[in-house]
Amino acid sequence: MPSSLQLDERTASTTNNSLVLNYEQIRKESELICAPLETEDYCIQTMPDVSPAKWHLAHTSWFFETFLLLPFSRNYRCFNPAYDHLFNSYYLTHSQPFSRPARGLLSRPTVAEIYRYRAAVDEAMVELITNAPERSWQEIESLIVLGLNHEQQHQELMLTDLKHIFAQNPLRPRYRELSTPPAHEVADISWINVDKGIYDIGHNGNGFAYDNEYPRHKILLQPFALASRLVTNAEYLGFINDGSYKNPALWLSDGWASVQANAWHAPLYWEQRDSEWWHMTLGGMRPVDPNAPVCHVSQYEAAAYASWADRRLPTEFEWEVSVSGLPIDGNLRNTDYLQPAAGNNESLLQQHYGDVWEWTASAYAPYPGYRVAEGTVGEYNGKFMSSQAVLRGGSCVTPADHIRSSYRNFFYPKDRWQFSGIRLARDL
Amino acid sequence: MPSSLQLDERTASTTNNSLVLNYEQIRKESELICAPLETEDYCIQTMPDVSPAKWHLAHTSWFFETFLLLPFSRNYRCFNPAYDHLFNSYYLTHSQPFSRPARGLLSRPTVAEIYRYRAAVDEAMVELITNAPERSWQEIESLIVLGLNHEQQHQELMLTDLKHIFAQNPLRPRYRELSTPPAHEVADISWINVDKGIYDIGHNGNGFAYDNEYPRHKILLQPFALASRLVTNAEYLGFINDGSYKNPALWLSDGWASVQANAWHAPLYWEQRDSEWWHMTLGGMRPVDPNAPVCHVSQYEAAAYASWADRRLPTEFEWEVSVSGLPIDGNLRNTDYLQPAAGNNESLLQQHYGDVWEWTASAYAPYPGYRVAEGTVGEYNGKFMSSQAVLRGGSCVTPADHIRSSYRNFFYPKDRWQFSGIRLARDL
Amino acid sequence: MPSSLQLDERTASTTNNSLVLNYEQIRKESELICAPLETEDYCIQTMPDVSPAKWHLAHTSWFFETFLLLPFSRNYRCFNPAYDHLFNSYYLTHSQPFSRPARGLLSRPTVAEIYRYRAAVDEAMVELITNAPERSWQEIESLIVLGLNHEQQHQELMLTDLKHIFAQNPLRPRYRELSTPPAHEVADISWINVDKGIYDIGHNGNGFAYDNEYPRHKILLQPFALASRLVTNAEYLGFINDGSYKNPALWLSDGWASVQANAWHAPLYWEQRDSEWWHMTLGGMRPVDPNAPVCHVSQYEAAAYASWADRRLPTEFEWEVSVSGLPIDGNLRNTDYLQPAAGNNESLLQQHYGDVWEWTASAYAPYPGYRVAEGTVGEYNGKFMSSQAVLRGGSCVTPADHIRSSYRNFFYPKDRWQFSGIRLARDL
Amino acid sequence: MPSSLQLDERTASTTNNSLVLNYEQIRKESELICAPLETEDYCIQTMPDVSPAKWHLAHTSWFFETFLLLPFSRNYRCFNPAYDHLFNSYYLTHSQPFSRPARGLLSRPTVAEIYRYRAAVDEAMVELITNAPERSWQEIESLIVLGLNHEQQHQELMLTDLKHIFAQNPLRPRYRELSTPPAHEVADISWINVDKGIYDIGHNGNGFAYDNEYPRHKILLQPFALASRLVTNAEYLGFINDGSYKNPALWLSDGWASVQANAWHAPLYWEQRDSEWWHMTLGGMRPVDPNAPVCHVSQYEAAAYASWADRRLPTEFEWEVSVSGLPIDGNLRNTDYLQPAAGNNESLLQQHYGDVWEWTASAYAPYPGYRVAEGTVGEYNGKFMSSQAVLRGGSCVTPADHIRSSYRNFFYPKDRWQFSGIRLARDL
Repeated sequence: MPSSLQLDERTASTTNNSLVLNYEQIRKESELICAPLETEDYCIQTMPDVSPAKWHLAHTSWFFETFLLLPFSRNYRCFNPAYDHLFNSYYLTHSQPFSRPARGLLSRPTVAEIYRYRAAVDEAMVELITNAPERSWQEIESLIVLGLNHEQQHQELMLTDLKHIFAQNPLRPRYRELSTPPAHEVADISWINVDKGIYDIGHNGNGFAYDNEYPRHKILLQPFALASRLVTNAEYLGFINDGSYKNPALWLSDGWASVQANAWHAPLYWEQRDSEWWHMTLGGMRPVDPNAPVCHVSQYEAAAYASWADRRLPTEFEWEVSVSGLPIDGNLRNTDYLQPAAGNNESLLQQHYGDVWEWTASAYAPYPGYRVAEGTVGEYNGKFMSSQAVLRGGSCVTPADHIRSSYRNFFYPKDRWQFSGIRLARDL
Repeated sequence: MPSSLQLDERTASTTNNSLVLNYEQIRKESELICAPLETEDYCIQTMPDVSPAKWHLAHTSWFFETFLLLPFSRNYRCFNPAYDHLFNSYYLTHSQPFSRPARGLLSRPTVAEIYRYRAAVDEAMVELITNAPERSWQEIESLIVLGLNHEQQHQELMLTDLKHIFAQNPLRPRYRELSTPPAHEVADISWINVDKGIYDIGHNGNGFAYDNEYPRHKILLQPFALASRLVTNAEYLGFINDGSYKNPALWLSDGWASVQANAWHAPLYWEQRDSEWWHMTLGGMRPVDPNAPVCHVSQYEAAAYASWADRRLPTEFEWEVSVSGLPIDGNLRNTDYLQPAAGNNESLLQQHYGDVWEWTASAYAPYPGYRVAEGTVGEYNGKFMSSQAVLRGGSCVTPADHIRSSYRNFFYPKDRWQFSGIRLARDL
Repeated sequence: MPSSLQLDERTASTTNNSLVLNYEQIRKESELICAPLETEDYCIQTMPDVSPAKWHLAHTSWFFETFLLLPFSRNYRCFNPAYDHLFNSYYLTHSQPFSRPARGLLSRPTVAEIYRYRAAVDEAMVELITNAPERSWQEIESLIVLGLNHEQQHQELMLTDLKHIFAQNPLRPRYRELSTPPAHEVADISWINVDKGIYDIGHNGNGFAYDNEYPRHKILLQPFALASRLVTNAEYLGFINDGSYKNPALWLSDGWASVQANAWHAPLYWEQRDSEWWHMTLGGMRPVDPNAPVCHVSQYEAAAYASWADRRLPTEFEWEVSVSGLPIDGNLRNTDYLQPAAGNNESLLQQHYGDVWEWTASAYAPYPGYRVAEGTVGEYNGKFMSSQAVLRGGSCVTPADHIRSSYRNFFYPKDRWQFSGIRLARDL
Repeated sequence: MPSSLQLDERTASTTNNSLVLNYEQIRKESELICAPLETEDYCIQTMPDVSPAKWHLAHTSWFFETFLLLPFSRNYRCFNPAYDHLFNSYYLTHSQPFSRPARGLLSRPTVAEIYRYRAAVDEAMVELITNAPERSWQEIESLIVLGLNHEQQHQELMLTDLKHIFAQNPLRPRYRELSTPPAHEVADISWINVDKGIYDIGHNGNGFAYDNEYPRHKILLQPFALASRLVTNAEYLGFINDGSYKNPALWLSDGWASVQANAWHAPLYWEQRDSEWWHMTLGGMRPVDPNAPVCHVSQYEAAAYASWADRRLPTEFEWEVSVSGLPIDGNLRNTDYLQPAAGNNESLLQQHYGDVWEWTASAYAPYPGYRVAEGTVGEYNGKFMSSQAVLRGGSCVTPADHIRSSYRNFFYPKDRWQFSGIRLARDL
């Protein structure tokens, strides 16, 4: 358990009752996300990075069962010992996880059985929260908060993975009927200047944060400017139409190798019908909105675009310094668009939360003084600090109460199935 | 349409009504095979050779829709034009088939939708059979008979593939409750001698046969002897325990490469629990019956076993000559064991139909004078006559009315997921 | 040692002296083939099937050292014990061979050292032949004859592999200056008819033959016709220009998969310059001669061509029956063209020896009664009788005294780097 | 050409004559490194990362030909236009480079021809230096200095690659006779403390540096301590013997995947003979010296070792701040050991130059304000700033006049064939 995990004031002041409510609401939310699915839709894994929805539902329950119920709940009887193998994701110090690329090869347990698993876990969790022993309460509460944040991460992943799953099907089925964000022109990018100086980075300890957001520490930044809004589809089309996918001069070496190996020529999910570009959304195939932010690009494409535009990507520190203190507001999951939307032209800095995860130039690395936590939960974040890049700001499928300025998401530079996009920066 | 396709006497003499009955019974049978399945079980593809059950159900319907309804039924309206891509297996001259290894990535159409597709096709087929135009009747009837034989092949494949699917799941779920074949000792192999001579090979034209069983022709055989029964698990254990999986001297060069690359050390589906061997069956995990025939071995293993036993595999011609004229009887699907069973020690030649497909030494090749049929149905058999080996005799999952002495099944020497086993032969 | 190995009359009647001469001449020939090479050219391996020339030189010496000198020569001291691992090709019952695809990763032993190895082996071999003990002489002589035939096979492979090596180099260096075969028109194909009947197949025991040519046995053939000459480049261009590489209807299923996977669109070594086709030869890049036989095609391409021409490939039996008894004459290595040449229009059956190995429709399989020989030499042929196809007749790089009507060469259907071409057949 | 490239004072003050001397001495050095080689040794490529020695010799000459002679030398005639394709390494904006993994498949041009190429380039270069036009001199001189540093990098790579080449050969040939570094005990690690503070990072502009060492800029460091010496083989054996290669808890996620996929169980080039560890050196197989620094470990292994020792790797900034200002001295190529040696226990901070490149925790990234240079030379460094890690300090095969405190080397975390080792750090 990361020693740096802290409960936010609200949670710390709640009675057990409010934690029960919080628990039930977040757990219910995962099931609501699955409400539009047919049984068949729960079972599919279209690439190793994608997991079936039923796996997500089971794994998040396994997390509570393994880290809370089995160690702390006296009366709890393991729902099915075989699940420990099947639904462990990557906690190698706990048990041998089932092969990740084979998650889609399991027809059993059935979806119905997994819902029974969830119900059994939920019943026992409510009992544990209500009657937890005083002396372990702090540890239990920390772990429950971690488990709920973990569940929210998987809610986002479920939507992300379902989009990939539906997009591979030539029938292009939609996840569900979705409303279209309002279309309107966006103004040219303007630039927010930030002075050279020493700034604080990392979480301040008020409320929950992952261990990778700690320790808060000071860094020295050179002066820079951050773009007022995200790069739009129209702007990205300029990059495409300029032949950039055929111009090695714009690309990182590994990026160019990816372009060649995968025949990339546009963002993931884009397809040209006659001369018009369409793309897959959770609401089905739609024309590409020129004013909406470009989405589903790799960090390689983001960097190549920046090079083409004679700009660069911001570091994660530049991003955090710029956004810190601004209200958490934007096209997050609660708007229910489930796709990026055109900026509103209203504030100086727009779209900093929601719409798309913003690729930064920063490699995912530990902050000075970071230490991996003791025990199995220590595998949560630290072991991934190699070869991945940091993304910031959340997306249109991120729960609104799950994002903050210090939040560090991380994926490989080649990954495109996340809702990932581009904000530019430049030196001053 | 292969010109060599002939209707059997029974069929030829039936009125349309009896073809309707035949059609309905065989089509119904496919659905009965699926009756024990959960919706999730229909969707899984555990390796490229395996297809999801729902794909089998749809593809066999597509066959009737494509080769019968759309060309011959005036009133029929295509159920869903997108299905032509999704459910075409390998008829490249007809349309571009959906990627075979990706058949398990399609959650839609749902299982329910595919049953609606079947129902629509069946209704239209009955209508077509009943009201077919006189002048096309012969062609229609041939194609229907081909379609029904095709459906029966897929019934066998469904059971074969479901076994693979359930076996990959660590829960080892069973397909359904199955009775165990009676256990009893089997007598030592005795040898049936066949004289040197000129023999007829291939189908005689009475009743249906695939084009690859034609033309019937004469061959000259050297004297040989065929084993009275199949190689048993006990005998194969002797081969294993003699270190044969580590002895390259016994193996074909490609076979040894397969042993090394795949770490083969026993038949597929075998696993050692403590010191006892168990294996997966459609009825779940069971101890290996020493008297039952060994099953789920590749041709490489069959050949290595024969080499170890100082025997050889029979050619397909030796097999056909030996079996021709014997009644079609054995542990075929109608026994409902769905696994191989010990020989009955009763007749001279035992287990020649059913139990396991018997690997022969013969490469799958055209008979002298064979010509690929005109049109798309010509892709049915001929294009697979390269690098595959012939198996004979049907297995415990073969419909009893689908096998005959001239029947040629074919798989790659490395394939193990079929119900395939070993019968020995030797020179005289 | 294959029990079926027989010495030809000439050899059997020779004194030891004439075997010494034979030995020295054939061993010298291997070195003459390498005379045009630079040191660097000896070291390269451009794909797993290709071996470096220095490996060929060493391996053939290892053959004599391992099967003759070490068992039979009292005074011989192993040249270098490490060579047993490095230069064993595939005799798994003897020792662990060095990884085949890694043969090109060995800079040592140097070329000079390998020539010293050859010299040491040759000196000891001459001594052995001269002073061999009477009681082992028959066995020794058989093995020497096998070793010399083995050496000749590797002479052909050296030229074949060197062509591949030089062809991968963008500089397209030539192996050496070569004269061009005379160019002239060839007459249309005529057909040699062969009656239905019982024919002898296999070697008659006069002179040397490999074990795979035994036992001689009778087969029954249906009537057929064999084309008078090989398929020409001009005819094959007709196939190409008709879009055949894009027409799946013409191809075996595995063949079509190869076309797709490897983007085949012409024979190996062909390249289009402006609108003209050129191809790599051992004498460097040359325009494709329309009248010369097409070469460097896979069996898949041969079969697709036959299908396009509405013909078929002959079986190896049809070939042998047609050619048996004809004089061994043709564009073999002794013409020193080292590339196929236009037919001479003179005899009824042309080009049956030399020019190109002719793909047959026959899978490489044991003849009835064939048994793998005892001991390590038993690995020579038998273990390759799976998934390969038989080629007949020798090519322009085959030594003239190494070919005969019963000679069976074998490669995988996908292989193209051999000098392999097409002769058509048809049913009567 | 990177605008940040500066000539060092010495160079700037030289007449053209001294640049000629410098040029000739460094170019000669590359050939001296090859003096012990047989012709065959020049041609081998044992993995995609490795290049044949003859390729290194040609490529460095191509660099001068392409960036100096062809643009600036009026009289120079291209030695061979085909070389531009063959010997371009990765300058995609210049021309299409020959496939990197295929560099070992080229027997031509021969080694002798490449030496002729070098001689022709050298002659023309001396002529250019002597008679360069005044107005281009600054640009020419910068490019020559870059070319000479480039040549020195390839000198190191040649030795590194030759070690890999000789190590793959079961004969384990040695590159040449080498003296053994003196063996002696090393003292326990002590720790050099560095205070929190703002420090300068990057090159100060005096003398040559690569563009990736610019711009010099300030950073804020937390307090830390750096280990006085490198991790020894004895210490690393403790890690091995503690079962660390089987303990996922110690590893980064990608590192554990590498351990599994490649069956890593010790550093590259180590092999156990009886119970003793030996390793391959450029002087042949030798017992592992317990006091010498561990070498040929990946960053994954370095990080796992640090985790096991409850320490961490330093950042590249911590390393540079600690080493900046110390004299450039150590076991660099000039000692001619060509392998790491035990520390001398004499100074507080030991082995900071030479012995092994020290893996840092830092991802290779641009410094604030870094801009990729205009033109083809801009591909030199910037495009590799993705997914690689920084190594510092040079190794026993680095030319002594090629290293400095700001020098940033970079490889992938999985790479082991470089002379790479471990220095620990810890938080204060």
